[in-house]
Parts: sequence; structure tokens; C-alpha cells
Amino acid sequence: MHQEQRDLTRRLLREHDIDAALFAHPHSVTWLTGFTAPVQAGLNPFAGGPALVWYAGGRFTLFVSDVYAALAEPFSQEPDGAVVTYLGYTVDAPIDAPRHLRKALQARWLADGIGRASVGVEINDIPAAIYALLSEMSSKADLPQAVDGLLLPARMVKSAEEIEKLRANFRLTDIGHAAARAAVRPGVREIDIWTAAEAAIQQAAGQRVPVTNDCIVGYREINFTGWPLDLPVRAGDSVIVDLSTIQHGYWSDSCATYVAGEPSSLLRELHAVISATLAYGAGLLRPGAVASDIDRGLRKFIADAGYAPYTHHSGHGVGVSGHEAPRIVPYNREVLAPGMVIMLEPGIYFPGKTGLRLEDAFLITETGAEQLTQHDKGMTGAI
Amino acid sequence: MHQEQRDLTRRLLREHDIDAALFAHPHSVTWLTGFTAPVQAGLNPFAGGPALVWYAGGRFTLFVSDVYAALAEPFSQEPDGAVVTYLGYTVDAPIDAPRHLRKALQARWLADGIGRASVGVEINDIPAAIYALLSEMSSKADLPQAVDGLLLPARMVKSAEEIEKLRANFRLTDIGHAAARAAVRPGVREIDIWTAAEAAIQQAAGQRVPVTNDCIVGYREINFTGWPLDLPVRAGDSVIVDLSTIQHGYWSDSCATYVAGEPSSLLRELHAVISATLAYGAGLLRPGAVASDIDRGLRKFIADAGYAPYTHHSGHGVGVSGHEAPRIVPYNREVLAPGMVIMLEPGIYFPGKTGLRLEDAFLITETGAEQLTQHDKGMTGAI
Repeated sequence: MHQEQRDLTRRLLREHDIDAALFAHPHSVTWLTGFTAPVQAGLNPFAGGPALVWYAGGRFTLFVSDVYAALAEPFSQEPDGAVVTYLGYTVDAPIDAPRHLRKALQARWLADGIGRASVGVEINDIPAAIYALLSEMSSKADLPQAVDGLLLPARMVKSAEEIEKLRANFRLTDIGHAAARAAVRPGVREIDIWTAAEAAIQQAAGQRVPVTNDCIVGYREINFTGWPLDLPVRAGDSVIVDLSTIQHGYWSDSCATYVAGEPSSLLRELHAVISATLAYGAGLLRPGAVASDIDRGLRKFIADAGYAPYTHHSGHGVGVSGHEAPRIVPYNREVLAPGMVIMLEPGIYFPGKTGLRLEDAFLITETGAEQLTQHDKGMTGAI
Repeated sequence: MHQEQRDLTRRLLREHDIDAALFAHPHSVTWLTGFTAPVQAGLNPFAGGPALVWYAGGRFTLFVSDVYAALAEPFSQEPDGAVVTYLGYTVDAPIDAPRHLRKALQARWLADGIGRASVGVEINDIPAAIYALLSEMSSKADLPQAVDGLLLPARMVKSAEEIEKLRANFRLTDIGHAAARAAVRPGVREIDIWTAAEAAIQQAAGQRVPVTNDCIVGYREINFTGWPLDLPVRAGDSVIVDLSTIQHGYWSDSCATYVAGEPSSLLRELHAVISATLAYGAGLLRPGAVASDIDRGLRKFIADAGYAPYTHHSGHGVGVSGHEAPRIVPYNREVLAPGMVIMLEPGIYFPGKTGLRLEDAFLITETGAEQLTQHDKGMTGAI
């Protein structure tokens, strides 16, 4: 599991003359190990801090609270992996998971014989108390160095294993969109459409699945992004439904715009323009294509059709994060390569009136791109 | 908003001779300001780190990414509050919110004239990069000192404002339980019951609400806690449904056990014993009662009825966290006081066979306790 990611990481650390490293960003942890902690309700009061991955002697050790022992167990089966759990929940003493985590890390540091080694840490995510411990244990001359962002470029091209995890998520958003589309009719509220999609996704997965992004009627003043509220959908209103799921630690993304009742001629026109923009963008996706060229192409296509283009990104990569490199934005000269998974999401918005966005996912192949999202982007369901 | 919490904090910091402080634990941030970031899908890739609260000169400043500007706005209206936002999302440059956050903090430090002041920080939660910045800006002699846990005792007694927020959440779990109870019948799965409750809660709230805890059939091997899965509920099976919601940054908690079809005589007996245990526990709740005495009382009540008591806690406080002081556990000599909100949750479990738990919330009053949860704890719905 995620062996290719760890091989890449070993090479990167060697290139930077780093002997040992501590990764703390949740996306780094998932990418390196496949482990992902439940997120739906925020911080677990028994967890003691983020899951950490310690690298030394070519091996990776995942530190997690024992409340996550079962979730972490598969990683202990990896030939280059180990799991260390520390005491989280107990009724016998005050809960002090951060202290137990520090003790566990200290023991590992000593066992690994880390002395004057060059140690890298993700300092934007590692808690200060952990960093202080590492600083104290290393000599002053070898203060841990920052490795934040080191893995980001390596995360762009997905392995076959990652692509399978992403596909599983795109199947879930397809299911969510079918449920949302069926739910849109005059009189329902944004939150009713949202809960229909969210329930369908989790019922299909047979487990809890985080679902996020947007569900917004066109008459909102800010009508390109927003969480579902108590706002009613009236006949003729557009509803942008943008769904991401997280399963196996990987994300999906997707968008469609549904209309309650009969779409106006304006909405029909917007749908035709954005469908064509998305098809045009899909045609630009191939190895060697430059992100900013794709971005400019999509915006120009909409402008040429006589509409003001969106102000948000044209698209982005997706993986252990819902928004990652390569970003399809004006400044970005990154080049597409086989194995990247790219979202494209053009839209046209009239604030306070109506809006329309469509979004698909594409796997960059040797010669072009394979569309991964399969949701029906027709504006009206089977009413 | 949360003025009482900040008055208490000023006093605590003064008692500890701390002139300035940086709070980073999400629960501290919510308790001090009322601000809470959405959590349902984990880390926002545009946020740049946790929301931080900076205290200096008697005033509190909330640092958040501009993606949370609207959510943070109410705090800027407070007489002793201010909000500083930093650049999160942009299409014009690489996203580097951690750097923008550091710059914003540095500017504030300089503007506040913090030199050799005594600075407190929550070092278990503050990112190392932020701590390094503070250490660099203060003199070596005055390294920031840890204030983790400083606010915990003050959080036990709730203000009237907090109690209103908690009540709003308990109303939501009442609604969730009614939906779960109606959904339990032979042939449904745990996840179907869960999504029924979760959808009903969010539809009633008119917005997204994080919902968490347990939904587990009695025949699981670990059958006192667990997330809902694809497991079917058969005639006669018990289903423990334990629901927490988070709204306005405050939690709720609640549990009932439902039965598909006709309850067995054993389940009827367990239900009678645990109902009586919970009523007995409620009678123990009053100012001056000691947490460990309540814990021992509940366990003994079940043992006296001829059953093995649960191994988990007997209960706990609830507020900006779903599990906080005072814990109702064997070692805890903390004393109840008016304004505390306490969960009690006795249960009896036969692993792999069946289990039953009931849980209510109680507000400690001057003379006893007021029950806040109102969900119907009957085992069968209106089938």
C-alpha cells in the first residue's frame, strides 16, 4: 500500500541530504501510508494531536492514538512500515494524549539512534511541543529543517492504486448527483437537496463519507460557492450542486447545475456555452499541455461567446486533497503528464440572479484524457 | 458574545503573570470568540493553519484566513475583539496561507509593542513555524511559556449564552433520535438508520450540521462504540444510536437503544435496569456532588441488579468539546456546581450478541439538575 509514494519520498529525502524526517500534514500522512483519520466532527478529544509519520533508516513509522489502532493496522503489514500507538482514551487517569505521544516519539528517536542526523520536519503542521522535543534531542547545530511542500510535486502524478481510490470516489459523486438532480423541484430548499445527495452517497458506500462543497440557488448574492441553507428553490431557479467525497483518504470533485421546473432561454444558453467550454477544455488536456494555457483557453472561450468568465480557478488537481497541484490558473506554468487527475470547472454567474457551472474530472493519459466523472449534467431530472 | 469567557481568561492570565498569549486549540478559539470553522471535510486547503486568538493589552484578536471572513465578522463587533484576516485563496499566485498568517502575526506583535513581555502559548496546538516566529521575536530569556489546559477548569461552568447554544444542539439530537427510531426495522442497515437521523437533523437546522458518534447492531464483537456500516438489522436486534451534533461551535450528546421488531425478554430487562440506573444517576446530580461518587454509584447500581457494568466512562461534561471536564470516572474528585452540563450514559453489553445504553444531558441547578435531552428512549418506534 502506497509503496511507490514511499520510494519517491526516500529518493527526495536523499537528494536533500535528510537522514530522518517527521511528517505532520494530514495529506502527507495519508499519501505516505494510506492512513486517514475520521474528520467529520473535527478534532477527536482522545487523539492527542495529528497522526505523524517518522522516517529513519529507510523505514516509515506511523504514530497514532490507540483510538485509531484498527484503522492504522493495515500499515503495520507493510514491509517498510510500522505503527506505534499511544494511550488516548482511558477512564483510569486524566486524558493526556499529547504527553503520551511525545514519550512515544522520544523512545523511537532513541531506539533509532538519531544523534547529529539531519532531520526534516513539516513545521507548518507539527505542533510546537513536538518540535521543541526534537530540537532538544538533536544538537543545537542540527536544528530540524523545514520540509513543508517537499512532497507536493511528487503528489501530482497518481499511481495505479491512487487512481483506483479516486475512481471509487467519482462513482460516489455520480450517485450523489443523481439523487440531487431527482430532488430539485420548486418548493424544496438547498438543504433538502444536499441531504438527499449526502444520504445517497453514504448508503451506496455502506459507511460514513465526508461530503462537501456547494449547493446554492442562483438568486444568492454570492452565487458561485456556498454551503446549503434554508433557502427555497422556486420554479425556474438554478441550483449549483458541487460535490466532493472523501473515501480511502482520497477526494473527488464534480459539479452540475439543476433547474427547478422549466429552464429559461438564458439558462439553456448558459448550459450550451458551458457544456461547449468544458468539451473544449477536455480537448486541451494531454501530456505537455501547460496549465496556464488551458486556463486562458477556457476563459477566452466564454468571453468569445459574449459572457464574462468566472473569477475562480479553471480547475485543479485532486488526490489526498480536494485542491492540489497542478492548479489550472493564470500564473501556473506546470506541465501536464500522464497519471495526473485534473478537474475542469467553467461557470458563468449573474450575482443575485442565476448561475451555472459544470465540472468533470479527467485522467491524463499518454495521448489525451479519460473522463472519470459520469454524472448526468442535464439541467432537469425525471420530473 | 462570549464576554464572560474573555473576562475569566483575563483574570487567569493576570494570575499567571502572562502579559500576552496565543491560543491555538480549536476549542479555546471557539470558547473565547464564538468563532468556529467548518470541520466536516477536514483541513481547508486555503486556511493556512488553525484559527488563532492573540491576547495583548486586554484585547483579543482572532486571526483567520479570508475564506472565513464572513464567519469571523461578528467577533469584530465585540468591544474587546478584533479580527485579522490573511490571504487564503487566490488565483493570482501560489497559495501560501501559512506565510501570510506569519506575516499578519508579526505585524500585530510589532504594533502591540510586545518586547520582553511574558508570552503564553498553547504549544500542543500551535504550529512549530508560528512558535519559531514568536521565539525569534521575543528575547531568548523570555521564551513563550505553555498555557495548554489553562482554560479547561474555567470551561466547566457554562454561561447563560453557552447553555442556549447547548439547548439548541439537544433539540437537534431529539429530532435525530425520532428519525432513527422510526427507521429501525428488520432489513435496514446501520448506515440507513444513520443517514435518516443525519438528514433529519440538518433539515431541521436548515444548514449543514456535523453529526457523530455511534450506530451499532448488538451482534458486533465490539458493540458499545462504532460508526455505522453496511451491517443489516435483523428482527430482535438491538441498535445503539448515540448522536452528537455541533452547531454554533457547541456540542450535544445523547443515546438510546432501539430494537427491530419485538424486544426479547432480556432486552426488556436490560432496558428496565438501565432506565432505572439513569434515573438513579440523575438523582445524584446536584451542587457539591463528587464526580467519582456518581461514577461508583452508577456502576454499583448495575452490579446490584446482577449485570457487569460498562468499562467506559459513566459520563462527562459537554461544551465546545463533546467530552470535557468534569469527567464522571473513577479517579475524578471534581465537584459539581450550578451551570455545569453533564452527560450520564450507563450501558450493559454482551459482545457479539446484544447491548443497551441510554444517555441524557443534565444542567446542574442550584438544587439538583434539569434534564436537557428530551428524546423518546422507548425501544420501538411507531411501527
